[in-house]
Amino acid sequence: MNEKRIKKLQESLVQRSVDAILLSNPTSIFYLSGAKIEPFERMWLLLVPAKGESVLFANKLFVFEDTGIETVWHTDSDNAPELLCSYLNGFSVLGVDRDVPAKYLVPILHSYPKMDIEVSNALEDLRIVKDEEELELMRISSKINDEVIVEAFDRLRPGMTEKDLSAIIEDSYVAHGAQCPSFGTIVAFGANAADPHHEPDNTVFTGEGGVLIDMGCTYREYCSDMTRTCFYGRVTEKEKLVYNTVLEATEKAKTIIKPGVRFCDIDAAARNHIAEAGFGEYFTHRLGHCIGLMDHEPEDVGPVNEHPVREGMVFSIEPGIYVPGEVGVRIEDLVIVTKDGYESLNHVPRDLVVKKI
Amino acid sequence: MNEKRIKKLQESLVQRSVDAILLSNPTSIFYLSGAKIEPFERMWLLLVPAKGESVLFANKLFVFEDTGIETVWHTDSDNAPELLCSYLNGFSVLGVDRDVPAKYLVPILHSYPKMDIEVSNALEDLRIVKDEEELELMRISSKINDEVIVEAFDRLRPGMTEKDLSAIIEDSYVAHGAQCPSFGTIVAFGANAADPHHEPDNTVFTGEGGVLIDMGCTYREYCSDMTRTCFYGRVTEKEKLVYNTVLEATEKAKTIIKPGVRFCDIDAAARNHIAEAGFGEYFTHRLGHCIGLMDHEPEDVGPVNEHPVREGMVFSIEPGIYVPGEVGVRIEDLVIVTKDGYESLNHVPRDLVVKKI
Repeated sequence: MNEKRIKKLQESLVQRSVDAILLSNPTSIFYLSGAKIEPFERMWLLLVPAKGESVLFANKLFVFEDTGIETVWHTDSDNAPELLCSYLNGFSVLGVDRDVPAKYLVPILHSYPKMDIEVSNALEDLRIVKDEEELELMRISSKINDEVIVEAFDRLRPGMTEKDLSAIIEDSYVAHGAQCPSFGTIVAFGANAADPHHEPDNTVFTGEGGVLIDMGCTYREYCSDMTRTCFYGRVTEKEKLVYNTVLEATEKAKTIIKPGVRFCDIDAAARNHIAEAGFGEYFTHRLGHCIGLMDHEPEDVGPVNEHPVREGMVFSIEPGIYVPGEVGVRIEDLVIVTKDGYESLNHVPRDLVVKKI
Repeated sequence: MNEKRIKKLQESLVQRSVDAILLSNPTSIFYLSGAKIEPFERMWLLLVPAKGESVLFANKLFVFEDTGIETVWHTDSDNAPELLCSYLNGFSVLGVDRDVPAKYLVPILHSYPKMDIEVSNALEDLRIVKDEEELELMRISSKINDEVIVEAFDRLRPGMTEKDLSAIIEDSYVAHGAQCPSFGTIVAFGANAADPHHEPDNTVFTGEGGVLIDMGCTYREYCSDMTRTCFYGRVTEKEKLVYNTVLEATEKAKTIIKPGVRFCDIDAAARNHIAEAGFGEYFTHRLGHCIGLMDHEPEDVGPVNEHPVREGMVFSIEPGIYVPGEVGVRIEDLVIVTKDGYESLNHVPRDLVVKKI
């Protein structure tokens, strides 16, 4: 267990007048306990009271080293939600993380009808600011990502499918020292890039046109995430305009980053630029998302998030323009908020490139 | 959308006196709507009222063909839980699936403090009984699994790691016409098999000892799942005893399967046999789980599940004995409950094999 982090969380619970927090997110539990479990449908929860000792609820099938936290074990034969409820006596205000599922939450409601239950982001609020050790792991994760994307664009040949290139990338990660991809690699040829969440399919690369790659890996559990869009053979005037608009939006957003600036203002800096260029309706998602032990962590760089950024936060800046059936461009870097600005975790050039094969 | 299934669900809601059900499980939503989305942290929900039209809540980033169900779209800039709550007016009893997360459930609690919220398995209750079309897809999925596991045991060579063999299996699936693995393939050499959920690592196959493979694939979204444990070069008396005890437990359980028999009795048939052989403490999990569009579907073949099995249900029978640091054996088949017994979906021989390389 990480006593320092648990203590910080407990201080935060006291400040928030929350008696205890129930955590179900396996990454949050890992962050505090050091035990990494994929529970599937079985119960794996951490209860942290504002005062007193934490309790870990674990199925006997889970294999992990002693965490130093009291563990309450159950088997598949036990009524796990009932066991959980028996540990909640005496709490008036219970915080839960956003992921606690109905199968645990509804039995709590029924057992404790007067308990005040609220979604608490106390833990996310800790996790969102990375310490120096975490930042160092994130730098390494992004360094690997930089190396692998450069290779990927170089290795692309006519006749390859999106799936082929995606497999090359995912295999390269391990060779470069990463654990695995941090999410399903996106490779999109031509107009496929106009779907921001396009899944690599059997579309064949003709040797010409736009190629969008959105990829990331994990290094000692910490994620990277980057997007580049590259053109091969030729680029149309429309593609050029779209590309440069996205690139400028990236710069507009980054320029204003420093502690105290609101997430929504960073989003607006990019969004307004795209709107002024006449592509507003084609930028259909938030500008970015926080990242760390998970690829997408709570707090987004979006139009409605009025929270100020803080030193040590890490998030993506990833504006895009998606004209259906025609063109899609996204450029994404990770940034750390520093004392008076930002540090980019990615160093792959961003300028428009028209590659020749 | 599958109107027949939605109508069946609505009839079930009326019988249960539930005014509407809120579904968050992407597979359940696919089962009813035909749209397959991985929403990650974004909102993707289906609200089915007992009477009237269903509503699908989707983020504009999701790309899917028109389902014929009214779709309420939102963007990352909208307050999605608030939008959801605005559609729940007038319901007194709201069913939710077991997965609905706190980030949606708690705002509902706060908006409708008098609403009776319960976890409803009305949808699972439909999904658990497969129709003939579904059964045919499951037969094909398991046929592929049979072919691939035989190849895998044949291709194992000294010097290969667990990860190597796992990669061979996962690659073979596509060549055999499957979409992908239905879960992370388990390959465990020697004493590693004593961890029921062992993840393939860099353990090297020496050419001797037990090898456990637990694997499955999906074919047109339907899952297979099977385990075999094989010995190479030699087998000890203890391993032989453990193996044959597990094999007999498999048979004891299968023999009694027919409509009306309770899940717990099927579990007990295997569990008692293992206990009588003196290995009771080493069989640490339920006997099996239902399967279909997901590898693990609700309803398990376990000691506390008193529900009777019904014709058309499909589940695994997978007893195991795990003696830590020493030996692990599991044998798993999928079975369909038929009118008067069962049909095995797997046809790979189960008898103890000592392979020579």
